[in-house]
Amino acid sequence: MSENTWSTTEQKIAESAFKKAYERETAALIQHIYEKIEEIKEIDSLWNLHDYLSAKRHQIDGRYDFRYPVLIFVFSDLMKEGWLLPEDLEGLDQDKISKITVLSRI
Amino acid sequence: MSENTWSTTEQKIAESAFKKAYERETAALIQHIYEKIEEIKEIDSLWNLHDYLSAKRHQIDGRYDFRYPVLIFVFSDLMKEGWLLPEDLEGLDQDKISKITVLSRI
Repeated sequence: MSENTWSTTEQKIAESAFKKAYERETAALIQHIYEKIEEIKEIDSLWNLHDYLSAKRHQIDGRYDFRYPVLIFVFSDLMKEGWLLPEDLEGLDQDKISKITVLSRI
Repeated sequence: MSENTWSTTEQKIAESAFKKAYERETAALIQHIYEKIEEIKEIDSLWNLHDYLSAKRHQIDGRYDFRYPVLIFVFSDLMKEGWLLPEDLEGLDQDKISKITVLSRI
């Protein structure tokens, strides 16, 4: 399988890995907001939190792009950020795993 | 004093009233966010909270306009919404108080 061709099995693994990364990142964001909210005592801090949420939403919307032609890059970015773990990719073609891993270290 | 002329004393009362309303509204918003955050368990709820904050920020930015030519209207709006109290206006010219009160009921 080349990096642009994904077998049915690989597609299922990719969908599951993508979902796991998304759930990890969004759960971590919710936890972070729980902690930040406790520090908020006045309105400027709340607007700072609003700015932070705007930036995170934009970043997450852009990052989670499940299209096969770009998936190697999406996965390498997610691995670099720590949301995708090597074990999530088990069962993918070794060439894909290598590319994702190498790119995640750049 | 007409509604467009504010004595030094009235200016001080107006500034203080404006500040009190702002502090009441923003404190209530912070309290509301504390309560809403507890209900957030997944990312869509967090994005809903983000949308809510965007709307409130826009509304508050627009509402608190301290320019004397529009202050009667700003105060009547704040009174209508419950952020400005009748006692905050004590010491202002009676004509201004009447106009603010009447407009707040429309």
